[in-house]
Amino acid sequence: MRATLMYGSGDVRVEEVADPVIGQPTDALVRVTYACVCGSDLHPYHDLESTTEGRRMGHEAIGVVEAVGADVTTLAVGDTVIVPFAWSDGTCAFCQDGITTSCVHGGFFDGAPSATQAEKLLVPYADGTAVKVPEGTDESLMPSLLTLSDVYLTGYHAASAGNVGPGMTVTVIGDGAVGLSAVLAAHQMGAETIILMGRHTDRTDLGKEFGATHVVAERGEEGIARVMEITGGEGSHVVLEAVGHMPAYEQAVAVVRPGGVVSRVGVPQYEDAPVGFASLFGKNATLTGGPATVRAYLEAVLPQVLDGTIDPGRVFDRELPLADIAEAYRLMDQRKALKVLIRP
Amino acid sequence: MRATLMYGSGDVRVEEVADPVIGQPTDALVRVTYACVCGSDLHPYHDLESTTEGRRMGHEAIGVVEAVGADVTTLAVGDTVIVPFAWSDGTCAFCQDGITTSCVHGGFFDGAPSATQAEKLLVPYADGTAVKVPEGTDESLMPSLLTLSDVYLTGYHAASAGNVGPGMTVTVIGDGAVGLSAVLAAHQMGAETIILMGRHTDRTDLGKEFGATHVVAERGEEGIARVMEITGGEGSHVVLEAVGHMPAYEQAVAVVRPGGVVSRVGVPQYEDAPVGFASLFGKNATLTGGPATVRAYLEAVLPQVLDGTIDPGRVFDRELPLADIAEAYRLMDQRKALKVLIRP
Repeated sequence: MRATLMYGSGDVRVEEVADPVIGQPTDALVRVTYACVCGSDLHPYHDLESTTEGRRMGHEAIGVVEAVGADVTTLAVGDTVIVPFAWSDGTCAFCQDGITTSCVHGGFFDGAPSATQAEKLLVPYADGTAVKVPEGTDESLMPSLLTLSDVYLTGYHAASAGNVGPGMTVTVIGDGAVGLSAVLAAHQMGAETIILMGRHTDRTDLGKEFGATHVVAERGEEGIARVMEITGGEGSHVVLEAVGHMPAYEQAVAVVRPGGVVSRVGVPQYEDAPVGFASLFGKNATLTGGPATVRAYLEAVLPQVLDGTIDPGRVFDRELPLADIAEAYRLMDQRKALKVLIRP
Repeated sequence: MRATLMYGSGDVRVEEVADPVIGQPTDALVRVTYACVCGSDLHPYHDLESTTEGRRMGHEAIGVVEAVGADVTTLAVGDTVIVPFAWSDGTCAFCQDGITTSCVHGGFFDGAPSATQAEKLLVPYADGTAVKVPEGTDESLMPSLLTLSDVYLTGYHAASAGNVGPGMTVTVIGDGAVGLSAVLAAHQMGAETIILMGRHTDRTDLGKEFGATHVVAERGEEGIARVMEITGGEGSHVVLEAVGHMPAYEQAVAVVRPGGVVSRVGVPQYEDAPVGFASLFGKNATLTGGPATVRAYLEAVLPQVLDGTIDPGRVFDRELPLADIAEAYRLMDQRKALKVLIRP
């Protein structure tokens, strides 16, 4: 089969590799019908060290089950499934808590031996991991359903962990696909004022359609001043940080209201950050978030896509075949595409 | 009147100073009947730079109202009141949110021109700040009522911000009066397993009476290993950090369960701390806490002291007159006393 490998910074290739095969009785083998490139794929695209063996890429997929291990009970050959970016057994203490990304048998497809930007995908703990799409679901819904494998539910995780609720003021930092998803999720949860911090008008325009009431294009001190002005000097009840770099963290801490919440889903590109009296502690601000527990939300949000309540697939503004995935990386890196759908 | 001044590290004196007088129509003047020394008073006791003017000390008090400004409506001369460690107007947006320590007109008695380790105290925004003790309340309850000005409700704030609830496993770091108060509060909130990390058996013994089910005397890696063992390798749903030093933070992050909460009330003696993928983010742990919003809890918890449900005043193991307050600082600094009650 063909799969995507990254051999180093900027070096993405589609190559012939061995087909994955069922190894464990809990595995399922899936023919990938929809995949995509994630903003987080651009991190290795910028700084992956060169190797001769390459790194398997991709962690978002919809596919059709081709084979299942002997212990798989909830999936059958021919089922269409959504595969979250992390696998999880669905039964351990942390899965029961809903923290599926900390599953004791879990792992991340990104960089795993079988990743999603490929023709086929091996899904570990298939009963716990994959979620079946109802038979007869219209093909036009597949892009929106694909966002339930990561991007929409990552924005949703930010809003959920941040306890966004009716009447609140929510600031979203980052106008990438996750930031826009966070806007959509905050809007669904009843936020009254949604301030989107971003500079790309094509993106912030979609953010407005998703529910943003204000757009702040300024950054740093100027951006902070604008948000404080919009919030009457009080700050934002919840800040959804969808970037992962230190300036975004600093903005988040600066605009969060006393007693408010900074919820991060942008993977932190730092380990230490200010949390003391002058930043979080003094104003009783809460810091939360982490890798999105997509699997824990998936079944509850699926009906909202199926009945058209939300259309998070609008974050896809390009579609390319697997053979051209290197071009998809280029377009996203150059911000000529927001998010590219891949058809293997 | 006599008041406590600290002129530098280890230099505590009781001196004659001018009586405070009503300056604003929202002020009240209180004759202090009970005060005490706080663990946080030991920070300047260790490292205050020497000055000639000295620093007024103390932020916990019960007293009797001697005079009120023209706009004070809820208090009258002769009322016995509990005065929280921070004043707050009770009406601003943040007070309405319950974040009274961020009141737009607020401030902290510690280091203010009128502080509590003195014969008299000026209480700004008296209607918003002070809480009346019912007439006829037995004098024996006063030490427990005094803990509602700070120490018990600071432990309570940790547990409340950490969302402690029935059935949970809670680890409390620190066996000072705030840590023990956090044990008592967590027990009140229904925590099933309460692990107290502390090395002073006289203190951890009181912790057990307050509800601790386990005591871990080990520190650092050994202490972490013990907590993980007690929790079956899963970690603690909530960690209440009542110390404020970096090793305590690191322990908290290490023993918190995926999806769990680290709630800090020990004033951080650091600004930056690990919060990235390897610490908080990767396991979706939440960091919360801050200066205790004592005033927001006070009226709800007061009846629990009055009816004997809780007896947080047991943290006082010594009583001294104001004249001997320097000795109180010494006893607490040398860990010969847990917390000293002061009678001006």
